[in-house]
Amino acid sequence: MVYNFNPGPAVVPPVVLREAAENLVDFRGQGLSIVEMSHRGKAYEGVHQEAIDGCLRLYGLGAEFTVLLLQGGASLQFAMVPMNLLPADRSADYISTGQWSRKAIEEVEILGRRCRVAGSSEGENFTFIPSQDQLTLDPEAEYLHLTTNNTIYGTQYQTLPRSDGVPIVADMSSDLLSRPLPWGQIGLAYAGAQKNAGIAGLTVVIARRELLERGGAGTGVPTVMRYSTHVKTNSLYNTPPVFAVYLFSLVLRWIEAEGGLEGMARRNAHKASLMYQAIDQSGGFYQGHARPDSRSAMNLTFKLVNRALEGLFCAQAEAAGLIGLKGYRSVGGVRASLYNAMDEEGCRVLAQFMGDFASRHG
Amino acid sequence: MVYNFNPGPAVVPPVVLREAAENLVDFRGQGLSIVEMSHRGKAYEGVHQEAIDGCLRLYGLGAEFTVLLLQGGASLQFAMVPMNLLPADRSADYISTGQWSRKAIEEVEILGRRCRVAGSSEGENFTFIPSQDQLTLDPEAEYLHLTTNNTIYGTQYQTLPRSDGVPIVADMSSDLLSRPLPWGQIGLAYAGAQKNAGIAGLTVVIARRELLERGGAGTGVPTVMRYSTHVKTNSLYNTPPVFAVYLFSLVLRWIEAEGGLEGMARRNAHKASLMYQAIDQSGGFYQGHARPDSRSAMNLTFKLVNRALEGLFCAQAEAAGLIGLKGYRSVGGVRASLYNAMDEEGCRVLAQFMGDFASRHG
Repeated sequence: MVYNFNPGPAVVPPVVLREAAENLVDFRGQGLSIVEMSHRGKAYEGVHQEAIDGCLRLYGLGAEFTVLLLQGGASLQFAMVPMNLLPADRSADYISTGQWSRKAIEEVEILGRRCRVAGSSEGENFTFIPSQDQLTLDPEAEYLHLTTNNTIYGTQYQTLPRSDGVPIVADMSSDLLSRPLPWGQIGLAYAGAQKNAGIAGLTVVIARRELLERGGAGTGVPTVMRYSTHVKTNSLYNTPPVFAVYLFSLVLRWIEAEGGLEGMARRNAHKASLMYQAIDQSGGFYQGHARPDSRSAMNLTFKLVNRALEGLFCAQAEAAGLIGLKGYRSVGGVRASLYNAMDEEGCRVLAQFMGDFASRHG
Repeated sequence: MVYNFNPGPAVVPPVVLREAAENLVDFRGQGLSIVEMSHRGKAYEGVHQEAIDGCLRLYGLGAEFTVLLLQGGASLQFAMVPMNLLPADRSADYISTGQWSRKAIEEVEILGRRCRVAGSSEGENFTFIPSQDQLTLDPEAEYLHLTTNNTIYGTQYQTLPRSDGVPIVADMSSDLLSRPLPWGQIGLAYAGAQKNAGIAGLTVVIARRELLERGGAGTGVPTVMRYSTHVKTNSLYNTPPVFAVYLFSLVLRWIEAEGGLEGMARRNAHKASLMYQAIDQSGGFYQGHARPDSRSAMNLTFKLVNRALEGLFCAQAEAAGLIGLKGYRSVGGVRASLYNAMDEEGCRVLAQFMGDFASRHG
């Protein structure tokens, strides 16, 4: 038995993997695999539409929103967002809460477009999410970009900032579908599927149609990099990543069966409280990286007060079947990723292990 | 029993699908799936490197070549090629042999770069591949772009044109790994994996390191769209499409076990000869779209002399388990895709069906 705390690619609900494995050779009795079918045929189109509709339904979004099923990960979105939404004579606001926010900012600069850093926690090694009064927002900004959850640092927006009419563009790579969200301010959200929504190779974009139709792209943007191309073709401009879309559709079903996003939020809050207790009740043996007011329900990051023990901690954890716990190199320490598909039992086992390890070495 | 003639996504070797299905829940006894593992961990890195090395080995390529494992399909390569390889003050030659060649040319124009059409079969509905003396090549061209196999029209270069020192950039989306190739003139080749090399979501680029390191990209090209980014990181700049890479590695093993590219070429030539005989010996009942000197071993395209019978042909074929035969809308008629994983038996059954259908309706 293995408990998988990998940061991404990450744990997938077992029921989803079993169903996908059963259908990989013979899809629903059709005599061939879903990966062998035309993406313009009925069977795949059913899967594709189920994924789009399921995503909108779970978030409670109406026809003013659309879901695009793309490729290239958040890294390609870092470029597509300004290429499509930021005209050369305008400026965008970016909040910097970690390495991925910084990369998003860098891509705006590479493109020669203008952006401002409207808030940052870089000076304190990204231990927190800036509060509303720490932001200096430009009311004329074309959009406000932020990273809802910071995988490396283990911080997460508890609520979105007030943007006063400026549409929020959110990188939700590591907390997509983990909780209900108020979409009133959000113009566009994007995420790789490999953390909460299935497997690597699919990028989910959820956006207001009106924003995508403004046509900020102008000339010079390759066809496949225009959001409008994918809106017009319902994400069938070119061959989609069929198997990853199929897995996404199965994960959406699983979330629905588990109580939807309210169910996920309850489950995730409960798991996170178990894990943060294990830190807070360790008498200082474990020290969380994130400030308590910015703690992520998705990625738990901490150090051992005796840093020399961290290697032993990870090795013994792995021997006990608790894998994927090594912290990211720029933070060090330990990171446990607690995405939707990680169950409470895994968290209990890890909390127990943390307590036992602290007793042995405290 | 189904015989799958889909143009892409297309048939995958059954042994590959079975192995992938077995490993989808528990990868080689590790207690978790390959899709749940870090792309920076040993297990996935082994798969990733096996795919890269296997591809180079099958083509007999040395260290002057590199293989990149990307996303976005040929559609993204249409933009990445000029963005990376075509400086603003230079020009490239493009040969137009079908819809995909045309799209590649359009993307150069969208980017505001310069290209010339060095040869075209558009005037004759793309029924042939221009011969050497039908090309007007620019000896100063930065590269010569061509589409080795034209999925929609069923034409294929039998040999590559002489480019006199200009590197060839080849879209091999529909005949990658189907035959050995002389790489002396080729600078870069790209292909989506979903026809001959596994499943949708992976784009394979095989290129001369020297060409990618020239740095034609200049400024303004997003990080993730620079070939140099992926060369430096061995295609691990961001999360790769893990499952599609795994499938690719299994397909490469299968090709190796089946006699490598020489084995594939023999197998494909034999299948194609069976199928073209079915056309040529039909007494005109079936009429091939491609000129005999340009016939593809990958996609067989033909019409029925009595076009009113084509719907019946496809319906009866499907009832007999022969699926995916409807021609592309711009050509009409019938198309049978005969990629590597289609076996001789499927071709025999289709040839037999064609003969029987012609007897009944001829």
